Amino acid sequence: MTLPAPLPLDGGGELSRVEIAYETYGALDKDRSNAILLCHALTGDQYVASPHPITGKPGWWERTVGPGKPIDTDRFYVICPNVIGSCMGSTGPASEASDGQPYAMRFPVITIRDMVRAHVGLLDALEIATLHAVVGGSMGGMQALSLAANWPERADRVLVIASTSRHSAQNIGFHELGRQAVMADPRWNQGDYYGGEAPDSGLAVARMAAHITYLSEEALTEKFGRNLQDREAKTFGFDADFQVESYLRYQGSGFTQRFDANSYLYITRAMDYFDLAEEHGGKLANAFAGTRARFCLVSFDSDWLYPTAESRHVVHALNAAGAAVSFVELSAPHGHDSFLLDVPALDRVIGGFLG
Amino acid sequence: MTLPAPLPLDGGGELSRVEIAYETYGALDKDRSNAILLCHALTGDQYVASPHPITGKPGWWERTVGPGKPIDTDRFYVICPNVIGSCMGSTGPASEASDGQPYAMRFPVITIRDMVRAHVGLLDALEIATLHAVVGGSMGGMQALSLAANWPERADRVLVIASTSRHSAQNIGFHELGRQAVMADPRWNQGDYYGGEAPDSGLAVARMAAHITYLSEEALTEKFGRNLQDREAKTFGFDADFQVESYLRYQGSGFTQRFDANSYLYITRAMDYFDLAEEHGGKLANAFAGTRARFCLVSFDSDWLYPTAESRHVVHALNAAGAAVSFVELSAPHGHDSFLLDVPALDRVIGGFLG
Repeated sequence: MTLPAPLPLDGGGELSRVEIAYETYGALDKDRSNAILLCHALTGDQYVASPHPITGKPGWWERTVGPGKPIDTDRFYVICPNVIGSCMGSTGPASEASDGQPYAMRFPVITIRDMVRAHVGLLDALEIATLHAVVGGSMGGMQALSLAANWPERADRVLVIASTSRHSAQNIGFHELGRQAVMADPRWNQGDYYGGEAPDSGLAVARMAAHITYLSEEALTEKFGRNLQDREAKTFGFDADFQVESYLRYQGSGFTQRFDANSYLYITRAMDYFDLAEEHGGKLANAFAGTRARFCLVSFDSDWLYPTAESRHVVHALNAAGAAVSFVELSAPHGHDSFLLDVPALDRVIGGFLG
Repeated sequence: MTLPAPLPLDGGGELSRVEIAYETYGALDKDRSNAILLCHALTGDQYVASPHPITGKPGWWERTVGPGKPIDTDRFYVICPNVIGSCMGSTGPASEASDGQPYAMRFPVITIRDMVRAHVGLLDALEIATLHAVVGGSMGGMQALSLAANWPERADRVLVIASTSRHSAQNIGFHELGRQAVMADPRWNQGDYYGGEAPDSGLAVARMAAHITYLSEEALTEKFGRNLQDREAKTFGFDADFQVESYLRYQGSGFTQRFDANSYLYITRAMDYFDLAEEHGGKLANAFAGTRARFCLVSFDSDWLYPTAESRHVVHALNAAGAAVSFVELSAPHGHDSFLLDVPALDRVIGGFLG
């Protein structure tokens, strides 16, 4: 759908003719009260529980979303929009600007709140006044927190998984190295590569770096250790001798098939800019003043990207604001990616919280 | 100096006309018994306690090595060789092969043990039968362990700081992403860039990634947090808005002034290949069977690159081998780089162990 009016942006100015691509699962009930807004992560998309149109792979949260699943589409109407700035149908750097050419780096730098502002426009268009819940993991959790803070009347429940209210210096550092990897690729060409060769080498390096941060050291050791890839001995060369090298190369190159490098720059920038306290006078509790929503925060003990302390920081602020909040740190070996993987305790938390 | 004979290599074959650049500090005593071999880290060099000839900066361990310092050059004769494979005078990929052209990627893949074999050649040339001690941090610690395991009669004391007996899957992953960043730079040109433009962009990205792993999250937060760089507000662009971005860019580009990209590939490969247990029948204790040296292992509580568990693993093996070993985990906020920084407790451990 196309937003009926230009979208005001945190950086000043506005974005015209904003398109939002989204998927829905389940049916909206008569009083329009059973909708759940599901917010995707950095490299996610709207294909939560249906096959990805490019890769053909199953939706990224099929294990969680569907009939009889923790987010039960027999009961709830699940809406998952592609964030603006991304590349799966919503307006982003690869979209046409008013001159008919791709925006490329003329696309404005957006924020997490800008993404959520676009989501709210979608909810308006769908005539959904109040969500049963807003749910998100990682960057999706940032969007859920931003909705709760800035549009507090729009959601009754807020479920935030493996996320944070602000990016740490280390988080920013990893993103900056990814952006520099993209920009170091001459095919990036200041962002003007549409119609030609894309900066796939740089984007693959960025993805490799990010992927390491998504997994715990234990998970990598458990999964790969120092095992060799399809060989009996080291080759004394620079091929992918170790399984972990082969895996990371595969993750890097696979990613470039489905993602736009400029989108990677814009979305990582939005995440780095995210600081919910700063938006609210420097005090995180202020962000949630007067909220009537119920909150649930979930962290994973092996997540070193957004460690438990970050969730606890949000919980303290919610407590200070007098909000109803539950919090659980789950034990799972997979690191940050645990929210996407087989963690039965997470299923129970999600199902229980959504009621 | 030039090794008198070709150097046999773990990967098979040998390396001819091996030159070893080294610095010494202090004076060798009459019975040649006061020598300390100091082994440098991945991107270190022989300029331990004297200005770097390219950058003009002080030696990398001036705080530790010198008259009256923990490694007291009034008492000890300190030898620091540049590792083979590196680029500060010892034979490496930028050196001339027999055809008069740089080796580039024709340089053989070397191991930590090959580096130490070259060091032993240097000790032979200097007529030093037994070292008072071998000392090293990070990759230097790997060399110290390799010397103790393979040439046990050559050192009376072995001091290993912030190191490991093997590279973990995560360690390999970070190195592989660095190598891919270098190789993704078209100026790398399969390693043949000598005389032309070097792959500085790729090498800078590799260095940025590595640098994040050298510091703890707390250190980055303490040092930079979300502070902006020379500006009052975010620019909504892709400049280095945050201090941590500016710092990492500076670290990346500064590094390219003094380091050769191919050396970075070869030395990271040697580190990834390092697995002292594997070299000794799969059992680390075997590596130290019959050693008569005294060992001291030091780790830092904030080091997530080679965490304390890795040092403890070595200590257990030394205990199993019946070796004399002391072990201390020091509390220091700086992460892996603590071994280079102001940690007075480390000074006391070093001074005490060297006697």
